[in-house]
Order: sequence, then C-alpha cells, then structure tokens
Amino acid sequence: MMKQVLIGILCGGGVLTIGILIGHYGIAKSSNPAPSWVNDVTKDVDESLIQRFMSEVDNMQIQENLRELTRVPHMATTPGDEQTVQLMLKRWQDPETGLDEAWREEYMVYLSFPDAKNPNKVTVVSPSDTVLYTVREKEKPYHPDQEDPEVVQPYAAYGPAGHTKGKLVYANQGKPSDYQHLNETMDLRGTIAITRYGGAGRAAKAINAAPYGVIGVLVYTDPLDINDGLMSDINETYPHSWYLPPSGVERGSFNTHFGDMLTPYLAAKEETYRIPTEDITGIPPIPIQPIGFEDAYILICELDGAAAPSQWQGGFNCTYNYGGPGFKHTSAFNNSDVKLDIFNFEEVKNSSNVMGIIRGSVEPDRYVIYGNHRDSWVHGAIDPSSGTSVMLELTRVLGKMVKQGTWRPRRSIIFGSWGAEEFGLIGSAEYTEQYFTMLSERTVAYINVDIAVFANATLRASGMPSVQDVIFTATKQVDAPGLDSTSVYDNWIRFANRTSPAHGVIPSVGYLSGAGSDYAAFVHYLGITSMDISYTYDRTKTNARIYPAYHTAYDTFNYASTFIDPGFVSHQAVARTAGNVLVRLADSLLLPINCSDYAESLEDYLNTAVNLYQTQLQARKISMEPLKQAVTRFRNVAGHLDHMIRTSDLANETPLKVRRINDQLMLLDRAFLNPLAFPEKYAYRHVIWASSSAGKATFPGLADAYARAETSGLDSDWNKVHYHLSVLSQAIDGAASTLVDVI
Amino acid sequence: MMKQVLIGILCGGGVLTIGILIGHYGIAKSSNPAPSWVNDVTKDVDESLIQRFMSEVDNMQIQENLRELTRVPHMATTPGDEQTVQLMLKRWQDPETGLDEAWREEYMVYLSFPDAKNPNKVTVVSPSDTVLYTVREKEKPYHPDQEDPEVVQPYAAYGPAGHTKGKLVYANQGKPSDYQHLNETMDLRGTIAITRYGGAGRAAKAINAAPYGVIGVLVYTDPLDINDGLMSDINETYPHSWYLPPSGVERGSFNTHFGDMLTPYLAAKEETYRIPTEDITGIPPIPIQPIGFEDAYILICELDGAAAPSQWQGGFNCTYNYGGPGFKHTSAFNNSDVKLDIFNFEEVKNSSNVMGIIRGSVEPDRYVIYGNHRDSWVHGAIDPSSGTSVMLELTRVLGKMVKQGTWRPRRSIIFGSWGAEEFGLIGSAEYTEQYFTMLSERTVAYINVDIAVFANATLRASGMPSVQDVIFTATKQVDAPGLDSTSVYDNWIRFANRTSPAHGVIPSVGYLSGAGSDYAAFVHYLGITSMDISYTYDRTKTNARIYPAYHTAYDTFNYASTFIDPGFVSHQAVARTAGNVLVRLADSLLLPINCSDYAESLEDYLNTAVNLYQTQLQARKISMEPLKQAVTRFRNVAGHLDHMIRTSDLANETPLKVRRINDQLMLLDRAFLNPLAFPEKYAYRHVIWASSSAGKATFPGLADAYARAETSGLDSDWNKVHYHLSVLSQAIDGAASTLVDVI
Repeated sequence: MMKQVLIGILCGGGVLTIGILIGHYGIAKSSNPAPSWVNDVTKDVDESLIQRFMSEVDNMQIQENLRELTRVPHMATTPGDEQTVQLMLKRWQDPETGLDEAWREEYMVYLSFPDAKNPNKVTVVSPSDTVLYTVREKEKPYHPDQEDPEVVQPYAAYGPAGHTKGKLVYANQGKPSDYQHLNETMDLRGTIAITRYGGAGRAAKAINAAPYGVIGVLVYTDPLDINDGLMSDINETYPHSWYLPPSGVERGSFNTHFGDMLTPYLAAKEETYRIPTEDITGIPPIPIQPIGFEDAYILICELDGAAAPSQWQGGFNCTYNYGGPGFKHTSAFNNSDVKLDIFNFEEVKNSSNVMGIIRGSVEPDRYVIYGNHRDSWVHGAIDPSSGTSVMLELTRVLGKMVKQGTWRPRRSIIFGSWGAEEFGLIGSAEYTEQYFTMLSERTVAYINVDIAVFANATLRASGMPSVQDVIFTATKQVDAPGLDSTSVYDNWIRFANRTSPAHGVIPSVGYLSGAGSDYAAFVHYLGITSMDISYTYDRTKTNARIYPAYHTAYDTFNYASTFIDPGFVSHQAVARTAGNVLVRLADSLLLPINCSDYAESLEDYLNTAVNLYQTQLQARKISMEPLKQAVTRFRNVAGHLDHMIRTSDLANETPLKVRRINDQLMLLDRAFLNPLAFPEKYAYRHVIWASSSAGKATFPGLADAYARAETSGLDSDWNKVHYHLSVLSQAIDGAASTLVDVI
Repeated sequence: MMKQVLIGILCGGGVLTIGILIGHYGIAKSSNPAPSWVNDVTKDVDESLIQRFMSEVDNMQIQENLRELTRVPHMATTPGDEQTVQLMLKRWQDPETGLDEAWREEYMVYLSFPDAKNPNKVTVVSPSDTVLYTVREKEKPYHPDQEDPEVVQPYAAYGPAGHTKGKLVYANQGKPSDYQHLNETMDLRGTIAITRYGGAGRAAKAINAAPYGVIGVLVYTDPLDINDGLMSDINETYPHSWYLPPSGVERGSFNTHFGDMLTPYLAAKEETYRIPTEDITGIPPIPIQPIGFEDAYILICELDGAAAPSQWQGGFNCTYNYGGPGFKHTSAFNNSDVKLDIFNFEEVKNSSNVMGIIRGSVEPDRYVIYGNHRDSWVHGAIDPSSGTSVMLELTRVLGKMVKQGTWRPRRSIIFGSWGAEEFGLIGSAEYTEQYFTMLSERTVAYINVDIAVFANATLRASGMPSVQDVIFTATKQVDAPGLDSTSVYDNWIRFANRTSPAHGVIPSVGYLSGAGSDYAAFVHYLGITSMDISYTYDRTKTNARIYPAYHTAYDTFNYASTFIDPGFVSHQAVARTAGNVLVRLADSLLLPINCSDYAESLEDYLNTAVNLYQTQLQARKISMEPLKQAVTRFRNVAGHLDHMIRTSDLANETPLKVRRINDQLMLLDRAFLNPLAFPEKYAYRHVIWASSSAGKATFPGLADAYARAETSGLDSDWNKVHYHLSVLSQAIDGAASTLVDVI
C-alpha cells in the first residue's frame, strides 16, 4: 500500500509536472508575447551609467588634450588648423574610443588676414613725415609660444586695407553717443580716433565713427577694463599672473553679422552664388587697427584738448583728454599725425567642420548636438581649446562605452567641431544653412561649450529657460572643483541666484540673446533649444571684461595650466556637467525640457513690458491685451501639459504617446521663429531671444521698436511697435497651440 | 483493480488539469505579454471600411446638401453666409452623424463691396454730358434666384471708387504686351480701356494700364472665350444650356496676393496690427468695372480706329477696332466718352471659418486636413457649394461611423469650411498664419475640393507628385459616373495622360503652382503636401475658359442640377475619390506619399532647365552642376528609402521606425520652403511650385530670373539667376538630406 501510495504520488507528481509544462509551453496565452522592441522603446535614462560616465571623466586626459591642441597656433584655414582637424578625426575614428563615424565638411568662406610680408603699421609722423614713434607690431615674448612664426600679427579682421593719417582724438568706447559727444567739442573730419574695447561691438567702433568724417580708428584694451588696473610686466602681468602684458592685443573679427558674408542663407560651397563684396554690410568702412595698452598709453597721455568726462577715464596714470585734435604742444608729438598703414586682405578659403556621430538605438531621427569651434586666433588654449579638450574627453568616455557595447543612446548624438568661428561663427552657421530642414525637424537640443573655463570660481550657464531644470539636475550630481562635499549646484547658487515664483531661490541661468558663440545659428536661425556652459569668475575678485589673455598670443597652454585651471579640475567639472546633460537629453524616455519654466520667463518679460510701455501704448490706442492673453494661455497649457506628464505612466504608454509629448517639447522653440520679424538682423528669427539694443529685459523686437518710436515720435515707428506686439502675440499663442492637447 | 485504475486515471487526469492550469496561468512566460497598444500601433488601413464608406456616399444626399446651401446668396460676411455657418455647425455637431467637435473661428478681414444705395454706373456720355447709353446694372432674371435682393451687383472687389470718363479703347486681355502694343498706335493718356477676361489676372488689367495713363478699365467675358461663340438667350444660353446669358457678369476679387491684405503674415484678429491701406499693393490703381457681353458688344462694335490684330478678335460679329480713341464718326456715340461712376467701399468685417475634427486614435498629433471655402459671390451652386455638398456628405458618412463606434482614424482629420475665399483665399490663409507652427509640424496632407464638378466628363487632379500614387489607388476603386464597369481611373487616362519613365502611361496629375483656391497657403506658405480634386470637361467639346456661369447670378441650384451634373453622380464620384484618399492618408500604417514620384518631376524640371538655360549660363560661368547633383542625389536617396520601405515588415517593426519613415515622407515638402526666395510674392515660399510668369515647365524662380536677365542683360539680373540656382540646389539637396538614412 505504501508502495502504491508512493507510486501514486510519484506518478501524480509526474503528471502534474507534465501538466504544468503543457500549460506553460503548450498553450498560447490569450495575449501574444510582447515584441522584442517593447522594452527598448520604453527604456529610460540609466542613472548608474551617468555615474560611470562622470567617474571616468579624467582631468589629466583633458590636460593632455589641451597640450596637444595648443602645440601651434591654429587660426582658421592655416596649417595649424589642419593639424587640429587631423587630431579630431584621429580621436573620433579611434577603434577603441572613437565614435560611430566621423568626417569633415568643407566650406569656401570669406576670411580676412594681415599680410605677413607687409605688416600693418601704426606710427606717429611729424608734419615733415618723419616717423617719431612706431607701435609694436608683435606682442612681447615671455615664453617660446609667443615666438612661433605662425603667431598672427594683431589686426582687425575685415577692416579694410588703407593708408591714412590724421590728428588723434580719444573717443572712449566708440559708441554712437561717444562720437556724438566728441563731435560737439570739435570737428572730427580727418581725425584718427583711439577707442577702448567694450561698450560697442568691434566693427561698430569704426562704423559709428565714419559718419563724422573720422578716417581711421585704433582700439586697445584699457588696463582698468581687463587688468583691474595693473600694468607692469615686471611683477604684475603675465607671466606673473593671469593679467594681460602691456603689449598684449585682442584680435577679433570686426563684423556685425554672423556666417559667411558672401553667401547669406546659403551654405558656402564652391559654386554657391556669392554677393558682390561691395554689398557686404556691417564691416568697418575705414581702416582700423588694435594695439596694446603700452602703446595706447604713450598716445593717449600725450593728447591735447580738454579732459574727457570721468566715465571716459581709464587705468593710465594721466588724464585722458579728447585730443586737440592731436597731441599737446608740449609733447614731442606736437603737431604730429597718427598714421595707419593697413595691408589686410580678404580671401575665400577652405574651412572645415569636423563632424562625429553616435547613432541612436531607438530614435535615431532625434538629434542631440554638442559642439564647439576648433579655430583660434593664436594658440587659443582657453578660446576655444579648453572647450575642445573637454569635448574630446567626453567623446573618449562615451565612445569607449559605445565601442565596448555597454551603451548606445536612445537618440542620436552629433558632435560638431566648427571651423572659422573667430571670423564670425562661420562653420556652425554654414552647417545650419546646409542642413536647415533636417536639423530643425529633428534636433532636440544644442549644447555649446566654447571657452570651458574662464576662471575657476563657479559654473555659468545660459540657455532657453526650458533647459534650466536638466542643468540643475546635472549640477547637483557633480562635485564642485576644489571644494569638499559641495556640488557644482550648491557652489553656483552662492555666486548667482534669483528667486523663482515656482522654485524659490535657484541659480540664475542666463539667456542666449546674442551671438557670442556657435549657439547663435542654432538659437536664432533654427530655433533649437540650446545652452552654453562654462566655469567662470568670482566677480567680487576681478572686474576683467573677460579673461585677460583673450585673443592674444598669451592664451597658451602655459597660461591656462598655470593661471586659469591648474590641475584641470574646473575643466573636469564642466565635462561632467555637460556630459551629464548630454546623456539625459539623449537617453531620457521623456525629454528633460520644461515648458512651465519657459512660461515663467515669458511672464517676466511681459511684466517688464507692461511696466515700461503700457501707459504710453494705451495713449496711442495700441492694446497689450493680445500679448497678455497669449502669455496667460501659454502658462495654462504648459501647466496642463506638465500635469498630464506627471500623471501619466509613460513607461507603460504607447511609445507614440511619449513621442508625441517629446515632439511638443522638442519643437517648442520653433514656434517662436519668424523669418520676417527682423529684416535688418541677419539670421535672427527667434522673437523671444533676438539681440536687442534697447537694454531692457523684455521682448527684443518690442523693446527696440519702442525705443526707436520714443526717440523719433513718428507714426510709422509707433506702427512698428504695434507690429512687433502682434508678431509676439501670434508667436506665443502659436507656441501655446503646439503645447495644448494635440487635437 | 479496475476501480483503482479508474481512480488513478481520474486522479491523474485531475492532477494533469491542475498542472496545466498552473502552468498556463500560474507561471509568467519568460517574454512578457504584449501591451494592449501593440495591436493599435501596427494596424493598417482597412480596405473593407473604404468599400463601406464608398457605398454609403449618396448622390441624393449631395443634391439635398446643395439645395440647402444655395437657398440664398451667401457672399462672405452677409446674412446668407451666416446661414451657411449655422448649417455647417448643425451638421458637424449632429449627435448621429457629426464629428467629434466643431466650432467657428473668426477673423476681422478687409473686404470690398459695391454700395447698394449707389450702384456702380457705366455710361456713354456725349460731350455735353448727355447720357447716351447705360450699361445694365444687374443681370437679367430667368429664374427667381436672380431676383433675390441679396444678389450683389457685379463689381470689381478692391477696385477703387472713383468718377472718371474718357475715350474708349480696346486693349484685348489687358496684358503688359497688349497695352504696350496699343500705346504704339496711340496716346493712351486719359482713355478708358475695355478688356476681356483671360490672359492676365483681374487686377493686372488695371495695374498694367495705369502706367500708360489709362484712367479706367472695363472687363467683360467674350462669347468666344466662354460660350464657344454662342450669344443669344432666345435659344442658346442659359436657361437653354449651360452657356452664359448676354447680361451675365463674372464678379471677382481684383487683387494679386492672397490672405487678408491689412495683416500680412499675421492672423487678422481684432487687435492685430494693420498696415495703412495706402501701403496695399497689387490692387487696381484706377477704377475698373466688369460688364456683360451684351453691353461690351455695343461698345466694342462702335469703336473707331484701325482693326486690332487677329488674336485680339473675339466672338462678336464685328471687327474689334483699337478705338480712335473713342467711337466711330458714324456712330451715335461719335465723340462721346465712356464714364465710370464707381462707389465701391472697403470695410473690415468679421468672417468665419467653421472647423470640425475627428480625433486620431493612434497618432492624434498627425493631421490630414480636408477643406473648401463656404462663401460664394452669389448663390455659388458650383463655386463653392458643389464642393461643400461633397464635404458634408463625406463628413456624414465618416461621422456616422465614428458616432457608431465602428471606426476611428489612426491620425486626426481636420475639416475646414473656409470663409472669404472669393476675396483672396482669406479664411484659409488666416488659419495657416494663426497656426503656422502647429500645422507645419503635424500636417500629413491637405485635400482641397472647391468646385467639385466643373463638368461631368473626367476627373481632374493636381497636387504634389508624391500623392499621384494614392490618387491612382483611389480612382481605380471608384466607378466612373454614367459608364458601365469603367473606373474613374480608366476614364481619366483617356482624357489626360502622359508617359512616366517609371510607370508607363498614366493619367496626368497637374501641379499646384498658382493660387487658384484654398490650397495656396498650404502649398506655398506651409509647404504641405496638397492636392485639389474635381470633375471636369471634355476639352474636345468646349473651349470655355471655365464653366460659363462662374461668379455670376446664374450659378444656382437650378443651373447645377440641370446642366452641370443631373443626378449628382459626378459629385458622388468626387466624394468617393476624395474620401478614399482621405481615409488612406488617415489610416495607412505607412503614409501613401511617394518620394520617387517627386524625383521624377524634379528630373523633368531639371531637363527642361538644362535644355533652356545651360548654354547661356556656361557662357556666363554659372554652373548648373550643383543643381544636377542635387537632383541626382534626391533621386538616389528616394530610391533607397523606397527600397527600405519595400523590404521592411513594417507591421512588425517598432512603431518608432514606422513613425520615422512617415515623418520623412510627411515633412518632405517642408524642405523646399525658403521664406526669402521670393520677396516680391506674398507667402510664396515653395521653391519648386511657386507661381511663375515665364511660362516654362521648370523651376519657377530660375525661370523668372532667367527671363528677366535675358531681357535686361544686366549683370545684377544674371546674379539673380545664379542666386536662384543656389537656392534650388540647396533646397533639393536639403530635401535629400531628410530622406537619407536619418543618421
């Protein structure tokens, strides 16, 4: 019996097992098994992968990147530039740590150079044409880097060649108001104006001068503006500190618009139509030359005439006079002219972008773009190679994960190493012109890291308000360099903060309303959500306009590693922050783009506009109601969308619903584009972030139109104010229409 | 033992069952069950549903729709227009057969009307101002419809008010060449020109005249151009046939651009900025009035002067002379003037679009838009109510399926009943301005059915080449009206065909290169894949410019049901065809948009351009190579995408891959937009399909620029040719970049 029972139990167990097997494998479930792609399409960002990425970002690798990038000067289209092209390609094509693919894209672009055989000359000449004084032609060497024959002579790119002389006057910053003021004290016709950097764009210093009959312009960096007043290279300036030596000269592009000047809105290919050079606008109409403050000191302190106003005074230990015009009677330069012999020439040259990609696994047709320019004026250790060093470290770590098969982003990542930025953001602008439609339809965001480290005090970020949140998330996860157990976020908030109605006290994120780096074409021409990230100053410690070696022959590896970021820990923090943001944008199931934060900025701008303009507009029967209604609607639908996101279980929703919401977020900024709103501003189409000269923290087109109308009082100018109000209302209401329930 | 065996078997069976149950329900499969949405996202169009739709489209319903729509005249913003608004809303909000939602959207638009209290007058007056002849003010009644007090007097909308008189001249069609020719034979200053419809736009007849000093214009429809020469209302014209009675007058909008004139690029809301009326361009600068051919006959046959050239002769049984200027010495009008007293006035009025939607189930953020205008000049039975009758029948059948729960489209469908089309496509243009971003990001296609039936011989379709295929698919499934076992496709191919390199002999699909109906803003401003569908003439049977009652008081239900489509079977065929296309666009897993067919058209245009222009361009060192390369690349990537589609099992792919391909197809036309390419043509941005005056079957900007350069010989004009070549090359290459592998 026991045996029978045992057999029964064994048999029963066997039958049960067979039954279980049949039931499990033999009978199809009423629901089909999930297709293999279901897991992929619902996968979210992997926090442990972000931690791994950040831990692998190596400051010493960044240092070695910088050393290699800055061996020789690499001005756009020079042999040094080609060396950096090859370096980028080698790194991005590396089989162990490279990207999926990398290549170069070439454009034939209009550049401007000094003539090495006929260096530009600035002299003081007596009435009998005797040369009494010659301005230094090249910066004084303190390190072998400055003696490299490839160091380009300081010059004003796009300033015309020409030979001109006249009595010297001091015109402060060369703003319209400066020349207007000066013109009230003397006849400016036939004079040469010396101006200091700041206050007006480079080209503007000459453009503003010409209508008054000024025939040449000098520009220098005043020690007060860059060196906190220090001037001596015996013990104060580089190589003793980060301050600019007396002979240092800021080079630069003296133009107003960005992109290749001969091919507006067209990619500058070999056969592309080029406008006649005489149709170029926004460049100096008269010769202009930048000089060092050691020479400016000699010239300015000898000037005759009345003392200039106190705001015009700089760091020299003399009174800045207007000029007689010309020099004091007591000066050795009495009755002498300043003479400019400028030999600049323009040339169409072949400039390369280097492009690299990591293909997305789930949404390859969605792009996160990360870029920086590659070209410099001289060695460009800080500008731009600090950013390039960071980009190379970031691609090394990510590339390795891709090559090892441990990671592939959900969306595609495009890296751009732009050419000829220094001449006017040319490489990035041509890229956006060539691929306009593709990029505007598919790009989730653009991350720009140009100068990665200006100084080592705190993070600085600018961008659309919608990316504030993802920058905060990232910075909370990165250790602040040189500080124990403080995050980049916690350090940042001490240096720059504001009170947000929604979030309380948070770090201040700036806006990208200018064209300071390669984000310009992405923001203003394409309307792509963008950001610019760097480490920067403690403003309580310096008033320098920018890091002092900017665009000079002193911006070298030695300078960067000694004075800007010894140990490269700030570089590392920027790489971790930018990479963290990049991976979140590429991998998150739901895009980390927040439309309610955008609403907050629009409300800010609206309040300012109402405070500044409403009374006057009401008197003219121009209503601000449509603008108010549009902002209110935007706020409401943004809140509605956010609520829908918060209350949805996106990982279990149809992937087309997630895609739909992501498309709403991705395309939000496109709704603010209007290609006709700013006919006089090349490629500015974003009606919220366009540049403005009115200096008000509000909608740029409205602010500029209002300022113009207030000045002129013309009905036609008040009409323009009304026009810009309508453009804005329609754009913001149109943006709201893209955020509301899709149908 | 048997009992034990039996118990054992029973127990074993029970245990097995338990095992099976455990195995089936108790243990999760290693692969998860498919989420419920997997079936939805991979579902394709249902052919049986299309068959059901087509069988339910009822010609008698269409007839009753037309009867109701045409009870009273319904010119834009009149009480009759409001009645049609209410009708649309009632139908679309019907709980049994309506749409998910329907509403009105209002715009304040700039319109032009005659003054009912001061009718426009055209008279012949003697030197002593005696009225010798008065042109008929209203059309002669043959049916109570013509006696409706709401029938608007014939007038030229946007022609200025004014009182002017002068000697009459005959200026043929009022083309620039006509006035130039006439001016060579006489001094035109102070004359009144009589012109016939055709050859030039309505406004152009006055705009072209003014520079020669002409002070007023008359326009009429010549019997040769509309009536195959017939003129008598005793037995030839309506009510005896479809031909235009002698007193019939074509009304129309005498403007050049489309959309509300006071709010360019802005939706015309209450507070929107309006340009000063004196800044309006493209409207007649001098008084102009349309008249019937019975009056034109009296005037023209009395004209003095030499006989006009043979191409200027029309259908009257007299010689068309140029005019002395003025009348023959032998005429009772000898030495008399023609006098125009025009009282037109402009007014900003509230015009409504009626919108209706069916929400998409899977991709609600993808829109198929179907539209037609609602406003007419008088009763508008054919223009536009034939199309509106079709639209209402289509929404009835689809709405019923939605309300019954038997169908919901994959993508959303938007129906638009546009207002104020007759005044310049205003309702549809304002809609695209208001929702520009949302529509351009999400719209799959726009289907326009305005005049559904011009005549009952054959289908006519125009559109982007990429929709040729889906139109063919649909027309093969629809029976040709009045023909046994012949499809609309087979009938069509007999009337209009061409030989395609890829497909052999196929029906000819036209291009939408003008602004003839509400597709204009979708094609030219938004770059949305569009089509226009109707039934039309047998051109071997009539030379009529258009159906003869066009824009007259004779375009009534009586006219349409008696002479255009008795039985409404052609209306039914159009409804079936358009609905079939609509459902395919809304429901297909893969969008039925074919990029290789687009390539064929580009190649056609390229070949024509090379033949016409290359020799001359080579001589001027302007290369056509970039354009050739761009078209070749477009062809290659289109073929590659098509091959990828053919070789993919899309129903089993990730839905994001299908979406990606669909996005490539949906957005294809957006790549051809350039908002700066045609600064002188309002809202024309599509560089392939923009209007052109050169009359060549090739790229419009290139053709127009070439014609201008050839005439002027100016370098600056040849530069424009080069510019347009670059614009085209970049657009086509940019389009190719959107079709190539996404990364």
